[in-house]
Amino acid sequence: MVRSVRIVGAGLIGTSIGLALAAKNIAVEMIDVDSRNQALAQDLTGGVSIAEPELIILATPLRALSQVINEQYELNPNSTFMDVCSVKVEPLQKVQASKLPLKQFVGTHPMAGREVGGAESARADLFLSRSWIITPDAQSDSEAVAKVKWLIQLLGATCVELDAVSHDAAVARVSHLPQITATLLAGSLHGVAPEWLDLAGAGLRDTTRIAASDENLWKEIISSNSQEVKALLTNLHNELGAMIDAVDDEERIAVIMRKGRDGRNLIPGKHGGKAREYTYVPIVIDDKPGQLGAIFNECAAMSVNVEDLVIEHSPGQLNALITLALSADDAVKLSNHLSSIGWNVHPIRK
Amino acid sequence: MVRSVRIVGAGLIGTSIGLALAAKNIAVEMIDVDSRNQALAQDLTGGVSIAEPELIILATPLRALSQVINEQYELNPNSTFMDVCSVKVEPLQKVQASKLPLKQFVGTHPMAGREVGGAESARADLFLSRSWIITPDAQSDSEAVAKVKWLIQLLGATCVELDAVSHDAAVARVSHLPQITATLLAGSLHGVAPEWLDLAGAGLRDTTRIAASDENLWKEIISSNSQEVKALLTNLHNELGAMIDAVDDEERIAVIMRKGRDGRNLIPGKHGGKAREYTYVPIVIDDKPGQLGAIFNECAAMSVNVEDLVIEHSPGQLNALITLALSADDAVKLSNHLSSIGWNVHPIRK
Repeated sequence: MVRSVRIVGAGLIGTSIGLALAAKNIAVEMIDVDSRNQALAQDLTGGVSIAEPELIILATPLRALSQVINEQYELNPNSTFMDVCSVKVEPLQKVQASKLPLKQFVGTHPMAGREVGGAESARADLFLSRSWIITPDAQSDSEAVAKVKWLIQLLGATCVELDAVSHDAAVARVSHLPQITATLLAGSLHGVAPEWLDLAGAGLRDTTRIAASDENLWKEIISSNSQEVKALLTNLHNELGAMIDAVDDEERIAVIMRKGRDGRNLIPGKHGGKAREYTYVPIVIDDKPGQLGAIFNECAAMSVNVEDLVIEHSPGQLNALITLALSADDAVKLSNHLSSIGWNVHPIRK
Repeated sequence: MVRSVRIVGAGLIGTSIGLALAAKNIAVEMIDVDSRNQALAQDLTGGVSIAEPELIILATPLRALSQVINEQYELNPNSTFMDVCSVKVEPLQKVQASKLPLKQFVGTHPMAGREVGGAESARADLFLSRSWIITPDAQSDSEAVAKVKWLIQLLGATCVELDAVSHDAAVARVSHLPQITATLLAGSLHGVAPEWLDLAGAGLRDTTRIAASDENLWKEIISSNSQEVKALLTNLHNELGAMIDAVDDEERIAVIMRKGRDGRNLIPGKHGGKAREYTYVPIVIDDKPGQLGAIFNECAAMSVNVEDLVIEHSPGQLNALITLALSADDAVKLSNHLSSIGWNVHPIRK
């Protein structure tokens, strides 16, 4: 439905979109202020020059948006425009202040990304199975919205419609607050003795994983969404204060912890919608090539579907712990079969 | 070296130790105040009654420790005693206040566990490749310490020696602070619109995963370690206050985020010691049985070692994204090979 797309900004998101479109034989043009980024992105996407792109995707940092909007509108006043910023109110305000008529613009936000950035980290399948939010303004042309929805679905994402203000409030909750929390927790590790850090387990790793995020990207996001973020941080600040007051009181601690446990259960399962309940089959295998393949061959022979897998190595030991996640029935079937042919299968668990 | 062990407390840790010992043909007796827990644990471990156990492992909640110490010492005044509590100062104080002579006691803490608890979740390989801290007092008998170290190594864990005070400070940093942070973040999700929670990605999931922990276990840990925990929470409270002040200032935000990123890089890699740097090979496969097995067969044929694997499904789509982690050389070798035989391999990345 859209045959030609110009993408302005050859970062992770822009280039990934370019790769995905190229894989679907849509004509793509990649532009970037940095000529080396542009050259790489053009190479990766087989990018061409397009005089009259049907759609122009703005994939630049927030600070460049106003200038780029006006430049691009001057070049191609008939194109449909969309952005991919992580916030949606400020881009809309920038469009309102620009020459670009609102009817030709659709704000969007692909909920996808990686801790690494840049065109060199781009992936055509970055958006597969992810949510992609659109925040069309009342004035957005229905044709323009249709084009944008079409592209999103082409890239394998699920289109979610929100208004811009709700979007910024929502991502403050599910993305910005966790980011800041991870950042502050990781920041507290400076000066800790290395022998103590050696004791770090999954808990510390999980809670600080996203602290690896790019500060240049995030400084824009947080300051753009500062009102929402400030409100949430202030609530957290109060809750933290309450916890400090409660540290000597077991019953108060238990109430706070129970609240956290119940809160976590509100998060939907990995695939969205209802939480999936898997059954886990732990198997101790020799840590050498061939073992995993043999297990997966047995899975195929049994026609069971492995939903997830975790590998836990034993440093200095010649074995590893593999935990497969399957449906309850498949787990029983697989576990019985593998045990019967001599695999070191541990009791299945939820 | 130790031929008979009585374990008092048939929870996750106690029963897992029992299972591990039973697998090594050490005589095990499982005791629990709850007769059903005890029966289950005895069944699982093939437990027997032992009149004179060489080693008695105290695996009860902290609140039961004093009573159990005295009871057990009365029964078996010649045994060596060890505990497995998540804090080490308070158990030591309880022993000092009890009839049990310090020389017969060694404080320990296996850095292992799961969000689920109870004997029914026990695993013989729970301690494989984990750190197991011991905090022997100056008065602890060297024979007693040797027995405990022997057991730890038998169970596949790595023995780490610390004094009790340092232990409590260390776990406050790497375990208790992350726990509380996850709890508070998860607790903030109450009242959030379900459509917003549907947008939750890996960031929110990772940062709140351990909020599923058991409040009855953690209320004891936090209040026992309240002094250390309070200090860390107060620091975090201050940092959070600074972040609130900085939300409109991009440069200040960037400094805070950079500090978090650098802090995260201080955490050693998955296998302890130096951080491992893997190279990642993303492959899009059809989401059906046989595919994973076929890939792993190719890995074996190429003699490459797969260090880790992540599976990302596409709901409603018939494919999945598999990302294999290998050494840099293996990644190139495997990627080239798989591509050459027609697999949909995406560019390797760090």
